Amino acid sequence: MDFFEAASLDGVLALAREFEPVDYETLLLDQALGRVLADDLAATEDLPPFARATMDGFAVRAASTFGAGEGSPAWLRICGQVAMGESPAFEVGPGEAARIATGGVLPTGADSVVMIEHTAAVDETAIEVYRSVAPGQNMVNRGEDLRCGALLLRRGYPLRPQEIGLLAALGRMQVTVFRRPRIGILSTGDEIVPAATFPEAGQIRDVNSHTLASLVRRCGAEPRAFGIAGDRPDELRRHCVASLEDCDMLLLSGGSSVGVRDFTVEVLSSLPGAELLAHGITISPGKPTILARVGQRCFWGLPGHVVSAMIVFSAVVRPFVERLAGLAPDAVRHFPVTARLSRNLASAQGRTDFIRVRLREADGVLWADPLPGKSGLIHTMVQADGLVAIAMNTEGLDKGSTVAVHLMSS
Amino acid sequence: MDFFEAASLDGVLALAREFEPVDYETLLLDQALGRVLADDLAATEDLPPFARATMDGFAVRAASTFGAGEGSPAWLRICGQVAMGESPAFEVGPGEAARIATGGVLPTGADSVVMIEHTAAVDETAIEVYRSVAPGQNMVNRGEDLRCGALLLRRGYPLRPQEIGLLAALGRMQVTVFRRPRIGILSTGDEIVPAATFPEAGQIRDVNSHTLASLVRRCGAEPRAFGIAGDRPDELRRHCVASLEDCDMLLLSGGSSVGVRDFTVEVLSSLPGAELLAHGITISPGKPTILARVGQRCFWGLPGHVVSAMIVFSAVVRPFVERLAGLAPDAVRHFPVTARLSRNLASAQGRTDFIRVRLREADGVLWADPLPGKSGLIHTMVQADGLVAIAMNTEGLDKGSTVAVHLMSS
Repeated sequence: MDFFEAASLDGVLALAREFEPVDYETLLLDQALGRVLADDLAATEDLPPFARATMDGFAVRAASTFGAGEGSPAWLRICGQVAMGESPAFEVGPGEAARIATGGVLPTGADSVVMIEHTAAVDETAIEVYRSVAPGQNMVNRGEDLRCGALLLRRGYPLRPQEIGLLAALGRMQVTVFRRPRIGILSTGDEIVPAATFPEAGQIRDVNSHTLASLVRRCGAEPRAFGIAGDRPDELRRHCVASLEDCDMLLLSGGSSVGVRDFTVEVLSSLPGAELLAHGITISPGKPTILARVGQRCFWGLPGHVVSAMIVFSAVVRPFVERLAGLAPDAVRHFPVTARLSRNLASAQGRTDFIRVRLREADGVLWADPLPGKSGLIHTMVQADGLVAIAMNTEGLDKGSTVAVHLMSS
Repeated sequence: MDFFEAASLDGVLALAREFEPVDYETLLLDQALGRVLADDLAATEDLPPFARATMDGFAVRAASTFGAGEGSPAWLRICGQVAMGESPAFEVGPGEAARIATGGVLPTGADSVVMIEHTAAVDETAIEVYRSVAPGQNMVNRGEDLRCGALLLRRGYPLRPQEIGLLAALGRMQVTVFRRPRIGILSTGDEIVPAATFPEAGQIRDVNSHTLASLVRRCGAEPRAFGIAGDRPDELRRHCVASLEDCDMLLLSGGSSVGVRDFTVEVLSSLPGAELLAHGITISPGKPTILARVGQRCFWGLPGHVVSAMIVFSAVVRPFVERLAGLAPDAVRHFPVTARLSRNLASAQGRTDFIRVRLREADGVLWADPLPGKSGLIHTMVQADGLVAIAMNTEGLDKGSTVAVHLMSS
């Protein structure tokens, strides 16, 4: 079965396009934070719906204030007061001013607002203005934020707090988004017992189900726990069939041993509509990773070592989850943190290495301290803030060089 | 009442220590992702609980392989096979080897694992070894990940996927965390109507309730919507009393007009146990921000402009939410993204300016494009990726200079 050569990281990542995004659901706006928009959205009204004051003061015609200064104030007659939340029934003419508070509707005739600080009351009926204003100053025009019909938000973009606010501003209290991809998680291994169980001699608690479910949640998808399958092909097959039925992607972890890896591929091949896409990836850790398609479903065979499984998820699987989640390619913007490497790092050519690092600030410089450690030791991940990738055709990185750190907190 | 001078940003941020973290709750491990640990946690067992193979191959005494090479293989007698999930009943003596798969328990006597790739079967009872191993190679020792009694995780640190995994590895299926701070949100203004309502002439939909609730969720706290209060002191006071009773912090937004700001302070002063901590902050946008303590509760009067309210939340309020949430000061690590400014930015001395920027990559350089725009226009926040702060005693920033961009997506 082993006729596949290990694929490059870039080669595997390009396969994400082979999978289709999941379907849609309609949610109340207040439940839609972080979700991915399923449709383009255009403004259905002008925003703001009327010209508004952005300062407390007097609505005026700017021309009435031209030439005004400390020594030569403009004298304006008070022609009214704008009540908040109401549309003024009067007009502002030349030489006139109307009291207005922030958010008030600009009366017809007015094209600007003089700040209250730049005025003085002459009496109940008049003010002096000590500074001229330009048309449009201290106010926003109708439609200045959004014009009716303008494209607001695009399909495939996630809804951040500001997008939620924009939809609220337009009264869109429901929004259609991609549903969360359902990601099944299945651990394998005769030695693995549920974490809640006290392990007998030779047994070990299932950690990958918990780390992978947490990583899945962090990308906005929905984890489904399918428990533990023993190291027997029939048992594994039964578990895979049941899990795949109910999810968009299945993460099988464990089976790092050569024998188990072989029968994982056998089990996969026996599933209807299965196609092996990658059998091994030239990354470290994570080389034994398997990627397959089963119908429209995405299947991953991840290494059993807890550190390897987490790193493969972050570096390889996550873009596939984002693809299923409906994210547009340019909507996915993980900006790495820039730091300086605190010691030399060697690396083998012909593979992409992922190095755990801890970030440390000293004298205003952010340093990335590499954390060595075997890939079965979870405490090294607890110490780590992020990962540094050493590209395939690089021999290593020098101490002091600038590196991009991909944070593992987000 | 206006005897307060506007406070500096640093001065206000230092006030966070005046508030105490909220109390605790105990959660199932699978619900604890992102929550803040309430107690120090020590390992209650060794991890792994036994010496384990990390490769498929043969458990041996390393000394039995010393001097082995391609031309001079070591000949070892097969003394048994380790079954997964069981403790082997036999020992490995000098010149002996036991079949073992990744994750298997190392038999007594063995101190290392020879990879299967470096062996060849002689017959059913013996192998040849073509490469020597060192003691401890291709295995992890009992307690190598964690020693029983070692401090694992510290109070005040958030639980990421790896910490969840560590707790699972130790069988800790429940964990005591700080409860989520409850943050009340109250909009004010006679012109403000609920977003679900179609506004009459002069009215405008409530946006801040939605953007602030989303920002609160993003920091792991729990928003509580208290609706809209009109511009009357008695109404505002009634709303404030009711809201404060039920939350740890209240965010009042609106009341940017001078009159409303004055009576907000009056209403505050009339509340039992109220103490005004800041009346104005030397930041832009956001200067009219009010901070008070009401008993143990934290009260904020935020500007009404949607952009200002979002920026003040991100730059000023968020550290207070993190303090209430129980986060240790060094557990809060928001690493900014480094970018180069694409044009000059002027700034007034004596205040901290927050500039909205969009990030753009060109020729391998990440550029921060400043987005001008009035603070009432939410579309500028939709275009923005983050904020750049211009420090208080800086006159501005030059085109091409390196800036720290605080992302608004997280």
